[in-house]
Amino acid sequence: MSQELRNRLFQEMNGWTLVDPHTHINPHAPAAKTLADIMGYHYYTELAHSAGLSRETIEEPGLDPREKVGRLVANLAPIENTVQYSWLIEIARTFFGFDDERLTPGNWEALYDNSAKQMSQPGWSDEVLRRSRLSGVFLTNDFDDPLTGFDTRRYIPCLRTDDLVFHLAKTAVRERLQKATNISVGSASDVRRAIGHLFQHFTKNNARACAISLPPDFAPAPIDATTADRALAALWRGNPSADEQRAASRFVFWTLAEMCVEHRLPFDLMIGVNRAVYPSGVYQGQDLYDSRVSLIQYRELFNAFPSVTFPISVLASVTNQELASYSWIFPNVVTNGHWWYSNTPTFIEHDLGARLEAVPATKQIGYYSDMYKLEFALPKFAMYKRCLAKVLAERYIIDRGWSETRAIDLARLVLRDNTTAIFGVAAEG
Amino acid sequence: MSQELRNRLFQEMNGWTLVDPHTHINPHAPAAKTLADIMGYHYYTELAHSAGLSRETIEEPGLDPREKVGRLVANLAPIENTVQYSWLIEIARTFFGFDDERLTPGNWEALYDNSAKQMSQPGWSDEVLRRSRLSGVFLTNDFDDPLTGFDTRRYIPCLRTDDLVFHLAKTAVRERLQKATNISVGSASDVRRAIGHLFQHFTKNNARACAISLPPDFAPAPIDATTADRALAALWRGNPSADEQRAASRFVFWTLAEMCVEHRLPFDLMIGVNRAVYPSGVYQGQDLYDSRVSLIQYRELFNAFPSVTFPISVLASVTNQELASYSWIFPNVVTNGHWWYSNTPTFIEHDLGARLEAVPATKQIGYYSDMYKLEFALPKFAMYKRCLAKVLAERYIIDRGWSETRAIDLARLVLRDNTTAIFGVAAEG
Amino acid sequence: MSQELRNRLFQEMNGWTLVDPHTHINPHAPAAKTLADIMGYHYYTELAHSAGLSRETIEEPGLDPREKVGRLVANLAPIENTVQYSWLIEIARTFFGFDDERLTPGNWEALYDNSAKQMSQPGWSDEVLRRSRLSGVFLTNDFDDPLTGFDTRRYIPCLRTDDLVFHLAKTAVRERLQKATNISVGSASDVRRAIGHLFQHFTKNNARACAISLPPDFAPAPIDATTADRALAALWRGNPSADEQRAASRFVFWTLAEMCVEHRLPFDLMIGVNRAVYPSGVYQGQDLYDSRVSLIQYRELFNAFPSVTFPISVLASVTNQELASYSWIFPNVVTNGHWWYSNTPTFIEHDLGARLEAVPATKQIGYYSDMYKLEFALPKFAMYKRCLAKVLAERYIIDRGWSETRAIDLARLVLRDNTTAIFGVAAEG
Repeated sequence: MSQELRNRLFQEMNGWTLVDPHTHINPHAPAAKTLADIMGYHYYTELAHSAGLSRETIEEPGLDPREKVGRLVANLAPIENTVQYSWLIEIARTFFGFDDERLTPGNWEALYDNSAKQMSQPGWSDEVLRRSRLSGVFLTNDFDDPLTGFDTRRYIPCLRTDDLVFHLAKTAVRERLQKATNISVGSASDVRRAIGHLFQHFTKNNARACAISLPPDFAPAPIDATTADRALAALWRGNPSADEQRAASRFVFWTLAEMCVEHRLPFDLMIGVNRAVYPSGVYQGQDLYDSRVSLIQYRELFNAFPSVTFPISVLASVTNQELASYSWIFPNVVTNGHWWYSNTPTFIEHDLGARLEAVPATKQIGYYSDMYKLEFALPKFAMYKRCLAKVLAERYIIDRGWSETRAIDLARLVLRDNTTAIFGVAAEG
Repeated sequence: MSQELRNRLFQEMNGWTLVDPHTHINPHAPAAKTLADIMGYHYYTELAHSAGLSRETIEEPGLDPREKVGRLVANLAPIENTVQYSWLIEIARTFFGFDDERLTPGNWEALYDNSAKQMSQPGWSDEVLRRSRLSGVFLTNDFDDPLTGFDTRRYIPCLRTDDLVFHLAKTAVRERLQKATNISVGSASDVRRAIGHLFQHFTKNNARACAISLPPDFAPAPIDATTADRALAALWRGNPSADEQRAASRFVFWTLAEMCVEHRLPFDLMIGVNRAVYPSGVYQGQDLYDSRVSLIQYRELFNAFPSVTFPISVLASVTNQELASYSWIFPNVVTNGHWWYSNTPTFIEHDLGARLEAVPATKQIGYYSDMYKLEFALPKFAMYKRCLAKVLAERYIIDRGWSETRAIDLARLVLRDNTTAIFGVAAEG
Repeated sequence: MSQELRNRLFQEMNGWTLVDPHTHINPHAPAAKTLADIMGYHYYTELAHSAGLSRETIEEPGLDPREKVGRLVANLAPIENTVQYSWLIEIARTFFGFDDERLTPGNWEALYDNSAKQMSQPGWSDEVLRRSRLSGVFLTNDFDDPLTGFDTRRYIPCLRTDDLVFHLAKTAVRERLQKATNISVGSASDVRRAIGHLFQHFTKNNARACAISLPPDFAPAPIDATTADRALAALWRGNPSADEQRAASRFVFWTLAEMCVEHRLPFDLMIGVNRAVYPSGVYQGQDLYDSRVSLIQYRELFNAFPSVTFPISVLASVTNQELASYSWIFPNVVTNGHWWYSNTPTFIEHDLGARLEAVPATKQIGYYSDMYKLEFALPKFAMYKRCLAKVLAERYIIDRGWSETRAIDLARLVLRDNTTAIFGVAAEG
């Protein structure tokens, strides 16, 4: 009974056209060109590496895409249990006519060739979007991205600000900022003007969010002008103390929040990541976290910016209850997706159940794919929809006697309508 | 099969007459007088506010109850998913003949009128207790409550001590203490005598517990007399340092525990709340928490007072495993209910499962309602009973092959018998 | 459907012969001699004590085994709900022909006599191993264990190092080290040589792991020779500062990791226990924990020793997501069992689900019994197999459409093949 019910709910959801509110898509090359673009996703390289494949084998300079896929396939058996592997198989079956349950040394070459043929068709990326029922995809743009050469209605800019907040001490970053804004950046007020310039550029080009990922020990706070000037000066000298680095980061971060007020942009916070914990890991497979983080660190921020909506992602499931509670109390705090290490069914189901029961339905952005290539939206959203169907079937329809219609109405908010409303993007018909 | 089984278990539990071991009932006005008393519960005001309704609209001075309900109803659609909303509907349907699934601008006035008629019947509060099968309800009394004018067998006093431990520096609190005890409070020994006086007054009036809520950073410790005297002197001067405030709080807290020994009272600890994290929130909708708290902070307390029973509530589900483990090891630590932000089915089921599997059956106080108006006990206890029925059906009867009789015996301890035994109150026939 | 499926999976797993990779078995007396050896397990004494039985009653000097069992049985009713109690009943039914659901004052004496008869049969411990389908059992050996007088193929040595890392300041420990190695231990290089000697002795005697349990605040780091010498000198003087104690512990710990490289031994880390939190508790019933621990504390260690496999156990379920994530990223980090306070079905199912979905299948050591007497492996592994069958049935076969064969292949890795591969022990036919 419950399985059929879950299937019906899933099928209903699967008919909706959605917007994906956070990805790392390159709008100039949104879809994969070969299977190596699919299997080069860090989940496969890092899991294969974790299971024993050397980084050198994976990342050999000049490695041919076909050879790279062959090497990875030869080492995938140990990760067939993972949900990430199931995304790969779902892509292969949905888009490329693959019929098997596993990718093996015996069957991968046919898949490689079939998929290459598909990918080389004109309009492949549009076709992927169509089959994935996506009308829009948020990007993750460097602050100095010119935002030209693509349709910003379909590929929606998002101002990513990690570099500004955490890496302004690097000469290259400062120079990129100066070049992008044509402002010589010295004092705190220079930085503020430059950031304002970036916001103008981005909002003029249909940007719908400002976003940042944050380490577990970051705690936003306002910084007075004198302290900010002194901290920035230390940055430019190249030898900031830990206190000065923190003050500079806080100053830039707080300024971003102020600009979000002015330019009416939501500020996506992705809280909890420590970078390069395993520096010998493969590309993008080096970051981990300390789950001892609390949203109490953001108390002053949430109070200071009541007009800014903060869609928040947390890296660890143990922080999810705080996220649900803070969203239940603060009007400007919104739950946002299931991020990275928490993006597996066991955590999604637990975290989603907790949110649905206590956060207003209009304040939950159900899911984003975080993908680098368009092909991944389909299996990732499908995984989430299955979790959502399961939680609605078990916790609402069975446990609380809801009708299917009512459950589907809730799903529609969480999957589709909240995203378009909160970020102010047009939903497709 | 499992659903019918769960129903049978629920029906069995639902026939038992219980004592509610923690509420905020005013014994002089225990039931609601209008629907505004129901819908004014902070869950509805804070969730409606979180979903967009301004605090000013909700808390306009002199607002007519009917108008207040109308304003809230117009803004309830976004919170219909929450379990708190389901309590409201269950109240409306059980007590006031409401037939719909949702409260809407089109149907609330009839409910308002019907409920007002019921609530104005003589003996309404007794009727609510009778239908809710409650023989007794614990109160949360200010330390200077005269405890007169009500039946303390039915409305059982509980000495709430937050003011003494955390707000003694306020002149008003000190004056209330002096007035209540007729003791001029200066030195540590004065404070001890005054507290002893309060315990005498409360136990003479059938008080069955001392209780307090505690912030995440509190760690009890004994304070020597000299330090206590110095800290209290700083309090009276009105400028205690953080160290002095902490010492004073610890001194008062430790004294309370000593009085619990002497007067044989359990000491309810509700651990983990930060007050006024969102100071612009609605009344009682401003508190949140930092989930980074550990019961190791209470190690010295639990060891120092083996004869005091500590029924413990934790605010965050991530602390529940520690609570289960500490109750499994310390004879004087008892699990107590599912508090506030952890009082939703997803957390209850997980936390309850963990407790049932590893804490002695006699050391688990299943549930309290925490209600402000009597009408809420019924839907809140019903929610808990459904969770308990689900966990017993799935984890005991199905997974472990228990008989239904055996599962029901366990439920009876957790729901009823432990409460009466631990607090020493008479169970009704 | 799901229950029959779970049963089929369980039956399949139950046919496999396994190695138990962590126990506290005494190879000279591996099985129980009387029911008192079974019921003297700390779970029963500490839970009975927690429920009201005094430590003095349980631990009276010279207490006759039969009398001890009688006293415990008279106080077991309050713990019949616990999963630990279910182990006891499963032992009684499986090994000793017990037919009831509960152990009572009316039926325990027959069980006592029947079990005593069985236990006194020649070859009883081999018979227990045979019926439990165990081909090998890891021990927990003191560093100065001579490792003689038993079959190290069946009872596999493991070098336990808590004493060396945390108690070297005790004269007795230093003397034991000197006696075991015939090295006069003064400087850091003496300690290193002595530890090297221990590793030689252990590996020569078929030791397959080095192991240690660690408090939540421990963070490994390399210590330079000068600092180590100074810290050790303070230890020998008997008055190390907290800093010196920490430096000495870190030095010894780091040296152990270096020896694991040299001798190719996995290093089992059991992270998170605080010892003697309840010093008045019964024997082995005094330890608890602070769940605020993070694997980020082990970042430097994991990076410094890529060739050492670290099978890791965490005490609290809230740390399990970090464990899954660190195992997913670091090639040398492996998940290991479900330890102590997390060894109950609610936590196992949640933690196991999270691991299966994201950690390579070859990097998960499913379970160890942690037992003190051989009889406990059967019910503890059975509990785990039931959890594994449930998770595989629900999350893989139902939710993800896996075949039973495929699920069973995954179970075989997790239950059996990974243990033999990671520790390099022979699997039995």
